[in-house]
Amino acid sequence: MKIEIIAIGDELTSGRIQNTTSSFAARHLYDAGYDIYAMNTIGDTPAVIGDALKQALTRADAIVVTGGLGTTDDDLTNEAVSKALNRPTMPNLEILANIRTHLDEITTSPVSSLEKLAWLPSGAEALNPQSRMAGYQLIHDDKPIFFLPGIPSQMQRLLIEEVLPKLSTWHEHHQLTTYHRIFRIFNLPETEVNRRIATLDLNHDVHIGYYPVFPEVHLSLTVRNQKNNNAKRLFKSSCKAINTVLGDSIYGCDRESMEKIVGKLLKKSKLQLAVAESCTGGLICRRITNTPGSSDYLLGGVVSYANSMKSEFLGVDRELIEGKGAVSREVAEEMAVGIRTKSGADIGLAVTGIAGPGGGTKLKPVGTVYIAIATREENWVTKFHFDGDRGQIREISAQSGLDLVRKYLLQRAIS
Amino acid sequence: MKIEIIAIGDELTSGRIQNTTSSFAARHLYDAGYDIYAMNTIGDTPAVIGDALKQALTRADAIVVTGGLGTTDDDLTNEAVSKALNRPTMPNLEILANIRTHLDEITTSPVSSLEKLAWLPSGAEALNPQSRMAGYQLIHDDKPIFFLPGIPSQMQRLLIEEVLPKLSTWHEHHQLTTYHRIFRIFNLPETEVNRRIATLDLNHDVHIGYYPVFPEVHLSLTVRNQKNNNAKRLFKSSCKAINTVLGDSIYGCDRESMEKIVGKLLKKSKLQLAVAESCTGGLICRRITNTPGSSDYLLGGVVSYANSMKSEFLGVDRELIEGKGAVSREVAEEMAVGIRTKSGADIGLAVTGIAGPGGGTKLKPVGTVYIAIATREENWVTKFHFDGDRGQIREISAQSGLDLVRKYLLQRAIS
Repeated sequence: MKIEIIAIGDELTSGRIQNTTSSFAARHLYDAGYDIYAMNTIGDTPAVIGDALKQALTRADAIVVTGGLGTTDDDLTNEAVSKALNRPTMPNLEILANIRTHLDEITTSPVSSLEKLAWLPSGAEALNPQSRMAGYQLIHDDKPIFFLPGIPSQMQRLLIEEVLPKLSTWHEHHQLTTYHRIFRIFNLPETEVNRRIATLDLNHDVHIGYYPVFPEVHLSLTVRNQKNNNAKRLFKSSCKAINTVLGDSIYGCDRESMEKIVGKLLKKSKLQLAVAESCTGGLICRRITNTPGSSDYLLGGVVSYANSMKSEFLGVDRELIEGKGAVSREVAEEMAVGIRTKSGADIGLAVTGIAGPGGGTKLKPVGTVYIAIATREENWVTKFHFDGDRGQIREISAQSGLDLVRKYLLQRAIS
Repeated sequence: MKIEIIAIGDELTSGRIQNTTSSFAARHLYDAGYDIYAMNTIGDTPAVIGDALKQALTRADAIVVTGGLGTTDDDLTNEAVSKALNRPTMPNLEILANIRTHLDEITTSPVSSLEKLAWLPSGAEALNPQSRMAGYQLIHDDKPIFFLPGIPSQMQRLLIEEVLPKLSTWHEHHQLTTYHRIFRIFNLPETEVNRRIATLDLNHDVHIGYYPVFPEVHLSLTVRNQKNNNAKRLFKSSCKAINTVLGDSIYGCDRESMEKIVGKLLKKSKLQLAVAESCTGGLICRRITNTPGSSDYLLGGVVSYANSMKSEFLGVDRELIEGKGAVSREVAEEMAVGIRTKSGADIGLAVTGIAGPGGGTKLKPVGTVYIAIATREENWVTKFHFDGDRGQIREISAQSGLDLVRKYLLQRAIS
């Protein structure tokens, strides 16, 4: 079953806003077993919207449209649909009632631009009439067309909760069984990943893709088949083979992030972490605290950007900073020890480095980063030299710090 | 002059990789004065590539194609172009010579998959024949078609250095002079922005767009015209009018971020900031330190996730935390005072709140956030209730903290 995705908005065709809704839709539709014929992005021009819709109807079995459903004057999707498919707009009474109730609470003015949201092309069935940004479905030429808002969070919810279930009952036998996994790899070059996978000589029904996603490499494994059992067996054995040749360079799968994996390992070992950050400036703490419940294993951290903060908050010797420099093996170690002992954590992680663009010297060029780990038993420091711009150096430093904690915890678990 | 952008790759249509090349191309082409008719993303299927190309030729004046030019078996763009436009592939001798020189250096094998890169549809003119990923231009039906590699860095360089200059000489009189500005607005609802702009009754040559980019609203102002002077005058007067009606709700323009603006204001007032973060978990520090040179005005911060860290590192009274709760007006104020005095900063910013999904109570539901600012002269605390998921509550809390510092600095400058 072929699906076409159409994203509407001048903010997209002028390149001001990165279109993220289409790839979100593509990923979820693909994983659910549909083929994506095309993803089309067009501006808020009714004639162009109409043409795109009519064309998609000639070649796709279902269409997902995002954007242009809002209240402002440049939201023209419903007008375009109405004209192109010859379906005059009419008010959806349930949505209208909700809007009026909402308006009664906040204003006394009788008419509002919000009411525009309730006027849909005839035949439209609201996907979530309780919400003002309801989205809707039209059946045209016996094909389902889904219209979703362009705001990513709203669009994503409707796609998952309404569109996918509706599609799955539309043409059940057109769905392919898809087994799919992303292996997330850090600290192993793409060519080396490629070389190791090539040694496996995988079955030709197994589709492998390589995607550098800085600072990681993602390897995608897909098996699509209508004969369920065989595909599943093939998928499982291929996963096992890949895990064997890549080992602990795979830190996680699918949507697992490095910080989530580190969190899981900390929780399992009942250990608590505290972080002292210089060049990463809060990035590590921010990544860990993205996860709900991270307070179980992260006590917190210090962003010791100024040298005075390294002494005041972490107890790093001022003379050591002056003698060895803030970016040095010795200061990194004292930072890790300082954050660990002052916070009472089991593990202290510290990062100090030169993210650039300024601040580099001949001996310590931009990209020089020291990462230290302090535990009850021992401390150690690793020196890195990273390439890239400021943002990349910060990103890979944070990732490397987390990866060192991960590897320490893995070793600890098996020793 | 209308341009269509086509991006090719199964990794895009399966949603595994976010397509960034198309919006990069769109932004630069739009800013150079072209209209983008459509951005099309399709898989590595020759028939679909051919159809997309033929269709684009019917409606656009120029086409930019990215992806599918590499050496692996799934790179099928040249084959598809050759077939669709009836142009047999032939070797480009300059590229071939470069590849052979390169191969002589690294291998003795006579034939290589790299040579595939030199076989281009007849009539193709390499954009940068010195490079193996040369890209090429075809003139078909008197319209220029540019083929660029899909790897963002290579594609971006060729677009800027080759495509834009070539296009600008193609049909000079088709380029529009474009004046464009994004006003970045925080803490004012989109409907209110819309209402105020409507009161201006702007000239109909002035194009306004509204884009909610959580947690902000972006307003785009575009004036495109072939009569230079008039457009410029119109643009300037419209900008002034918008600035007047929206005032300090506009925190910045175009690519300026909130943290950059706060940084500029701090630098100008020669003041230094330190931050104590609880629910934002390092997000504020991380955002400020994204900017090179931020060490001039940010001393650093403490991520006091655990209550013990609030006492140990910030000197917050343990009994106060127990009595009032970690998320309270009083604790927020002590955190701000603590980070300010212990770090020696001029301004202390503190955020404590409940980001969820757990941890909410009837009196303090998820989304309750206290933000405190401490200065030499005075301290104050603001209470917020934010909607959204954990990520959104953290994001808007960080943004609100920075915005409070911005408004304090603006007031200080004019008083």
